[in-house]
Amino acid sequence: MTVQQFTDYVKKMKHYEEALNVIYWDMRTGAPKKGLAQRSEVVGTLSASLFDMETSEELGDLLSTLESKKADLDYVTLRLVEEVRKNYDQNKKIPPNEYKEYVILQSKAETAWEEAKATDNFALFLPYLEQIISWQKKFIGYWGIKNGSPYNTLLDLYEPDMTTDVLDHVFGELRKTIVSLVQKIATSPNKPETSILFKHFPRESQRALSLEMLAQLGYDFDAGRLDESVHPFMIGLNHGDNRITTKYDESDFRSAIFGTIHECGHAMYEQNIDEKLDGLPLATGTSMGIHESQSLFYENFVGRNEKFWEHNYERLQHFSAEQFGDVALADFLRAINMVEPSFIRIEADELTYPLHIMIRYEIERDLFNGNLQAKDLPQVWNDKYEEYLGIRPETDAQGVLQDMHWSGGMFGYFPSYALGMIYAAQWKHAMDKDIPNFDELLEKGELLPIREWLTDKVHQYGALKKPFELLQEATGEALNANYLANYLQDKYTKLYKL
Amino acid sequence: MTVQQFTDYVKKMKHYEEALNVIYWDMRTGAPKKGLAQRSEVVGTLSASLFDMETSEELGDLLSTLESKKADLDYVTLRLVEEVRKNYDQNKKIPPNEYKEYVILQSKAETAWEEAKATDNFALFLPYLEQIISWQKKFIGYWGIKNGSPYNTLLDLYEPDMTTDVLDHVFGELRKTIVSLVQKIATSPNKPETSILFKHFPRESQRALSLEMLAQLGYDFDAGRLDESVHPFMIGLNHGDNRITTKYDESDFRSAIFGTIHECGHAMYEQNIDEKLDGLPLATGTSMGIHESQSLFYENFVGRNEKFWEHNYERLQHFSAEQFGDVALADFLRAINMVEPSFIRIEADELTYPLHIMIRYEIERDLFNGNLQAKDLPQVWNDKYEEYLGIRPETDAQGVLQDMHWSGGMFGYFPSYALGMIYAAQWKHAMDKDIPNFDELLEKGELLPIREWLTDKVHQYGALKKPFELLQEATGEALNANYLANYLQDKYTKLYKL
Repeated sequence: MTVQQFTDYVKKMKHYEEALNVIYWDMRTGAPKKGLAQRSEVVGTLSASLFDMETSEELGDLLSTLESKKADLDYVTLRLVEEVRKNYDQNKKIPPNEYKEYVILQSKAETAWEEAKATDNFALFLPYLEQIISWQKKFIGYWGIKNGSPYNTLLDLYEPDMTTDVLDHVFGELRKTIVSLVQKIATSPNKPETSILFKHFPRESQRALSLEMLAQLGYDFDAGRLDESVHPFMIGLNHGDNRITTKYDESDFRSAIFGTIHECGHAMYEQNIDEKLDGLPLATGTSMGIHESQSLFYENFVGRNEKFWEHNYERLQHFSAEQFGDVALADFLRAINMVEPSFIRIEADELTYPLHIMIRYEIERDLFNGNLQAKDLPQVWNDKYEEYLGIRPETDAQGVLQDMHWSGGMFGYFPSYALGMIYAAQWKHAMDKDIPNFDELLEKGELLPIREWLTDKVHQYGALKKPFELLQEATGEALNANYLANYLQDKYTKLYKL
Repeated sequence: MTVQQFTDYVKKMKHYEEALNVIYWDMRTGAPKKGLAQRSEVVGTLSASLFDMETSEELGDLLSTLESKKADLDYVTLRLVEEVRKNYDQNKKIPPNEYKEYVILQSKAETAWEEAKATDNFALFLPYLEQIISWQKKFIGYWGIKNGSPYNTLLDLYEPDMTTDVLDHVFGELRKTIVSLVQKIATSPNKPETSILFKHFPRESQRALSLEMLAQLGYDFDAGRLDESVHPFMIGLNHGDNRITTKYDESDFRSAIFGTIHECGHAMYEQNIDEKLDGLPLATGTSMGIHESQSLFYENFVGRNEKFWEHNYERLQHFSAEQFGDVALADFLRAINMVEPSFIRIEADELTYPLHIMIRYEIERDLFNGNLQAKDLPQVWNDKYEEYLGIRPETDAQGVLQDMHWSGGMFGYFPSYALGMIYAAQWKHAMDKDIPNFDELLEKGELLPIREWLTDKVHQYGALKKPFELLQEATGEALNANYLANYLQDKYTKLYKL
């Protein structure tokens, strides 16, 4: 009886979440601007109701009752209890009045960050950043130190069981390989011709090509749709409704095509979770990093693969005769895989991207483990960019102020992006054993076996298995950055004839 | 203090309603089909929460407190209390278990109706219809007889204070005029050439023309958007977000163009309600009939007006050169105003449409006032069609089973459609005094003064004034069908050279 009550209760919470997500999706895909102020009040009301449900005594009692008879519970219920408990404690351990104060600070900090970025004035943001950090430290006190250090508590929010020990190790190894490659590429005479990328590609053609790509990758249009937004995203409303957005830039087709492929990876994860988890909080990706591994697998290992374009290049030329009609496939491939150290993370290429993440990770780790003060961030940031990427930001706007994450208190999140690349390379390595003709499938445009492999090893479980467990069972290994390092080494040595 | 509490409370109810409406809009404009089952559960959860709020003791207490000190309340609060009380009693007076039973019946009745219509078998639907009617009679018992007869209680749900006495009178007069016109037209040799209407009009061109029309009519695109759905509709999410949908039929452009104009009339009503009512249940149309008077005003008095097309015909030809390039404006006008008695209400022309409504009204009135049994409906229905329209349905599917309203227990709603036409003609008559150059404005495409007049007399008040009060103050008269009768008489005598 309690199991049924508990399941009904958490499903009802998911209903509220789904309603909120429909509204978020709508707000980002064309809701009329004059209605947005009132819509935010709607979001406020539903969020408050959801928060009440998430922190109620009733839920606390249900959890305690079930935790007292774990031996009687099936595996799904056990994991469900564990996940809901984690979320419950996270919300409940912070005194409501303090949380309220923090939310107000968050809002002010975001405004201050916007202004600081716009006027290139770190000093404007610093006092807010310091407060946000000290609140987060206070929260860590409430939540408890996990895995031996305060920052690990934050990592665990996004990547369960992740620690600085693990990250220091894998990022350390990977950094050496990447920095060395980047340095060699900088002096290589074999630079691609990239001006071909920036010609006019009509938006309607970009959309048509995006739709073809999605169909080829295996996206289920009966369980999703493609829309447009300022920043591409995927939103999982429920098992049968995982929507993608993309952005059409008529002078740079890459944002739409690679954005679509990336978001498709996210969407296919959620479309292929086992139906038995429908409506439960387990019917989602098991971590930020694993989710990102799905999108990056498709973006990099499929979408930037030579064989994929051997199959698709004619279609691309069909939709962009003016731009690519006379461009050889080899030149196209070198252009879309160009490497160029740059300041802005979200515009970085595949090879340098992890360096941007490592810099942020090291800063966060040192902030929370007591080795760095917020006021020193600009200096440390710029030094690290110079050391790892060989370039030094000239302004804080293009340096430490570029991302909004910290203004919202999101510490511990950045590593997921690089973890996604590491996981993705591990999936690829494991997949090669089961699908030795991977390249051949891409060449023929027969991508179904690839999606099915990922469904079998990753998608179906949703959050039923935790990241490390999923990885171990699918690949027989723990986290290992060597596969990514080897992939990057081989790929860029070849492309740049190093 | 209680006023503030009450206002906050009803605003929170509106937040739930708005969230539900975003979901309804989404479900009808392209939500992926595999997600709909789960989405219905979300609707169920939010609706149940809303119903709890609508029927809570807390709301009851707030209402009683405010009702006990009416002298202290401002006019807006007074009307707010009155409206919320009406809705509260309507929900609260039905015992919850009975309401639950009724909702289940409703769902079964809708399914039975669908099957009965598909198989042309009234007997399948009859037992459900009988139960629905007897439940509605029971509800009338709970709600109390309004204005002297049971059916008036139902009318009052959609059109406050409306009675069969009033309707018998206005419909009676109007019917004579229309039936006589229809009979004359039937024998007129001056029939329009209507085959020109049904040629290929590309959907993209229909959309482009629809957008132009909306801009011309005065639709605020910052407070709305145009989408596509199976049946056109307008949904008011909040003051700054009133969305329109239309339907593009490539072999009959009329559904898109006149559908868009019609829904625009609804949307402009809600876009122009006084801001002081924002977020309150009064920020909506004051009745179904008044709402319909706005859509029908634009559809008929603007959209089917000769002068309107003198301004717009070139644009139409621009978008449909193949179809209308060689068609004279006069022929186009006669075609879009053609009269032809037909069986299906939603396909009826402007002149015969009210007859469809009167038939349904008379049947409902007699059902609830005890003069008709459900089992006799097909016979009565067909007799009335023969008497009023001169045609007799050959099947119940194209007769009594065509509308879904009764399967959902919506009795009292149909009259609103015809009332909308009557009101619209009254607005037009009053407007003529203030805007004597109405036709000239249409000819120049300068429609703003028309919208402003309607805002001044109707829109701004939302539900602050009740229908009869609004009508009296704007036109100096009570409900009067003569203006509609005269308009139809003049228009069709001229068009058909009677």
